[in-house]
Amino acid sequence: MELFYTYQISDGICFLDQEESVHCVKVLRHRAGDQIDVIDGIGTLYHCRLLDAGPKGAQAAILSEVRGWGSHPYNLTIGCCPTKNNERFEWFVEKATEIGVDRIVPLIGERSERKVYKTDRARRIALSATKQSLKAVVPEIAEPVSVTSFVGQDAASLRLIAYCFEDGSHPRRSIKEALQGFDGKDVTVLIGPEGDFSQEEASLALEAGYIPVHLGPSRLRTETAAVISAAAVYLHFMD
Amino acid sequence: MELFYTYQISDGICFLDQEESVHCVKVLRHRAGDQIDVIDGIGTLYHCRLLDAGPKGAQAAILSEVRGWGSHPYNLTIGCCPTKNNERFEWFVEKATEIGVDRIVPLIGERSERKVYKTDRARRIALSATKQSLKAVVPEIAEPVSVTSFVGQDAASLRLIAYCFEDGSHPRRSIKEALQGFDGKDVTVLIGPEGDFSQEEASLALEAGYIPVHLGPSRLRTETAAVISAAAVYLHFMD
Repeated sequence: MELFYTYQISDGICFLDQEESVHCVKVLRHRAGDQIDVIDGIGTLYHCRLLDAGPKGAQAAILSEVRGWGSHPYNLTIGCCPTKNNERFEWFVEKATEIGVDRIVPLIGERSERKVYKTDRARRIALSATKQSLKAVVPEIAEPVSVTSFVGQDAASLRLIAYCFEDGSHPRRSIKEALQGFDGKDVTVLIGPEGDFSQEEASLALEAGYIPVHLGPSRLRTETAAVISAAAVYLHFMD
Repeated sequence: MELFYTYQISDGICFLDQEESVHCVKVLRHRAGDQIDVIDGIGTLYHCRLLDAGPKGAQAAILSEVRGWGSHPYNLTIGCCPTKNNERFEWFVEKATEIGVDRIVPLIGERSERKVYKTDRARRIALSATKQSLKAVVPEIAEPVSVTSFVGQDAASLRLIAYCFEDGSHPRRSIKEALQGFDGKDVTVLIGPEGDFSQEEASLALEAGYIPVHLGPSRLRTETAAVISAAAVYLHFMD
């Protein structure tokens, strides 16, 4: 099953941009009259018939639609400090999208080796992973924000921060234990940089109501920790 | 913490091979008298003092040892069909090693696009991921074997096969449900190729006592499915 993406839908017509049109018409050689499937990136799959097979701007008439297609029963935000090696973070974006994530927030921590992050590549990766994994919602890749300002903003009902040090007064539970019995929908998990969150960042998060967690006995790379968090939430909501 | 690896240990001396010696002496510039940490790849960490800092074959005297260092409370075998794109399978090897896996078996399935798999690169990746994630056991990367012959051999107490089709007479449960209440130690999970296992392979596995599972609603790439399986077992054994 091949999916195309567009945000331009009106009067029952999906308008593909040039990139999607080229892929549809030149690469996959679709012709007017062919049936194609289009996602709007915000939850709906449209079964369409190709009207105009122009490589600059193909158009397809909507035959039927499926709302909430490929959706998951939770709303997960992962705030993660981009890794020094960009590919590792992008790999996390791809895998979290496949597993099921709603929002990825690149966090800039005190100890981040990468203080600047451009979101354009991650957005392309999220879109292609969304199509590849047959989902209709493309996860939001937020603009980078500092850890300290993010923890003040986020309002998920379950907010977890994973760090590696022990703070006597706030013992960490495992992410599994923290999720146990949670019957809400909105979860946020924060994953620090290679050098971990700073004590100050952790304290601010705890003051803001975050629950300190660990991800088990294994020492995980930043991007692996972020994927394990997505997996823990995905598995928590699995029957 | 920097780890070195050797399988040559005798009379209280760890003998590093040339690659490890160069890394220890040339790259990290260790000198005789320095303390270094060495793993034997089968579970023990040795705190050592460097005696001979020769770049061709450094030697270190064992001061103390920690058995079962960085170990996990289960014994997990993942049989997975190597992906067409080698990097994706190697990525799984790295991530599963970080999370905690004991044996990775490259499976050749009827529908495998990759019918030949060379294990040398995967072994190097497993070793470096073991050191990087501070474990003392290097997961075994077995030689490739066909799905049909593997399912006849393996004798783990919990054997799961993940495939994507529905077989009316053998409904699949989720991997989470299949793990629930399992208090054994030995788990094997089989993950098929991009084209999935064949009906025949699945039937053979079921006859051999495998439990058919799915990995939840998301459509996962082969390597992501394999990592999710490792994560599910890791989380099952997490407190």
